[in-house]
Amino acid sequence: MWLYVVGFLGLYYLLRGYWERQVVSHLQEKYVFITGCGSGFGNLLARQLDVRGFKVLAACRSEQSATQLRSQTSERLETVIMDVTQTNSIVAATQWVKERVGDKGLWGLVNNAGTAVPTAPNEWLTKQDFVTILDVNLLGMIEVTLNLLSLVRKARGRVVNFSSIAGRVSLCGGGYSISKYGVEAFSDSLRRELYSFGVKVTVIEPGFFKTGMTCSKKVSKSILEVWDQACPEVKEAYGEEFLASQWR
Amino acid sequence: MWLYVVGFLGLYYLLRGYWERQVVSHLQEKYVFITGCGSGFGNLLARQLDVRGFKVLAACRSEQSATQLRSQTSERLETVIMDVTQTNSIVAATQWVKERVGDKGLWGLVNNAGTAVPTAPNEWLTKQDFVTILDVNLLGMIEVTLNLLSLVRKARGRVVNFSSIAGRVSLCGGGYSISKYGVEAFSDSLRRELYSFGVKVTVIEPGFFKTGMTCSKKVSKSILEVWDQACPEVKEAYGEEFLASQWR
Repeated sequence: MWLYVVGFLGLYYLLRGYWERQVVSHLQEKYVFITGCGSGFGNLLARQLDVRGFKVLAACRSEQSATQLRSQTSERLETVIMDVTQTNSIVAATQWVKERVGDKGLWGLVNNAGTAVPTAPNEWLTKQDFVTILDVNLLGMIEVTLNLLSLVRKARGRVVNFSSIAGRVSLCGGGYSISKYGVEAFSDSLRRELYSFGVKVTVIEPGFFKTGMTCSKKVSKSILEVWDQACPEVKEAYGEEFLASQWR
Repeated sequence: MWLYVVGFLGLYYLLRGYWERQVVSHLQEKYVFITGCGSGFGNLLARQLDVRGFKVLAACRSEQSATQLRSQTSERLETVIMDVTQTNSIVAATQWVKERVGDKGLWGLVNNAGTAVPTAPNEWLTKQDFVTILDVNLLGMIEVTLNLLSLVRKARGRVVNFSSIAGRVSLCGGGYSISKYGVEAFSDSLRRELYSFGVKVTVIEPGFFKTGMTCSKKVSKSILEVWDQACPEVKEAYGEEFLASQWR
């Protein structure tokens, strides 16, 4: 009896050891393009992949955050300024990536850029508030992907899209959950379409991690701003007490 | 033994009979606003609710379809021209509804207006193709709802949003599934927010019904148009054979 247990345990650790040794090789030759590297997950990933030896191409929205990132990383890491809501900016960044990766193609595209404000009960918001978030989290991701896909296909690479737990459960009003549900839909149809080209599509669905996005001060400030601009009818229906009980 | 079976069956039919008699009363006093009444489900629903005695307020995109609808229905049914992608048009229609429902409020808001083209593999499309669908199916629905919600609350009414089976499973590339996933997210957070006001929010998720939207001629035509405009790289990757095997 004990012999069997020891045998099984031995086999388990043997297979596990083998499995864990299956890591990606030749990291030094692989290009990864990451959006939204100024802060949060994008920033962490860029620095981590740089340490591992990847050739990281990091897109930031501001020159300031790009400079800061370069100061914290090796010479390999290069930065480009890109606003995912601007077609011109995406086209220019695509050209910049093309010049770097050449015939190797792009081994990884990580669509991380995103925003979570304004988030508030739906009725407090305007159409524009929804548009603001969808433009970054959903349409920005789609346009970046469409532009870079031929380079990813060249490397038989992978697309990694940042969704969220809010892409599975509609946790809050406003555009955030809507945009992340959209990311799930986009990523799933894309995954099936690219399967035969040897390109993988993955989603990441983080819960509540402590990044700039979940900073409670920032979220509260945004909600109070939205409340201030809500129409009198809505304010009367919800009442100051509701606001105070939730966010003040 | 047989006595038990007969007893249970009797009880079942008794309860079922009672349940089926629980229908909405005073239909003649209830206002229902439906978007996209020019064709498809919206058109069918407007005509059916009119027959049942509701006061139907039907929004159509063109005067032609509005005239046709009025010619097929009673004097009770009124039409308004509304384009759900235009804020001005929604605001004007809201005012029109307000004048009609008065203090009674809006018993039902049915967000049915929608479009499914262009639908094609994601990579064949441009950002604008996604925007076109999202503007109608998702942002149009959101803005109509935000504008009419205070009237719905007045009647402790219900919001009925048209999603789709494609709002659960990402069946195809392009904006359609993405928009319907978004409808699911929006409707679910709205449902929770309005619960304490006595307002219900429901989604309808049709499969493939024979409406104008699923007309295979129209869908094929749209796909061929998208293919014609796709960039050479994409055409080379997918190939004419792929197109022919799927849609020619």
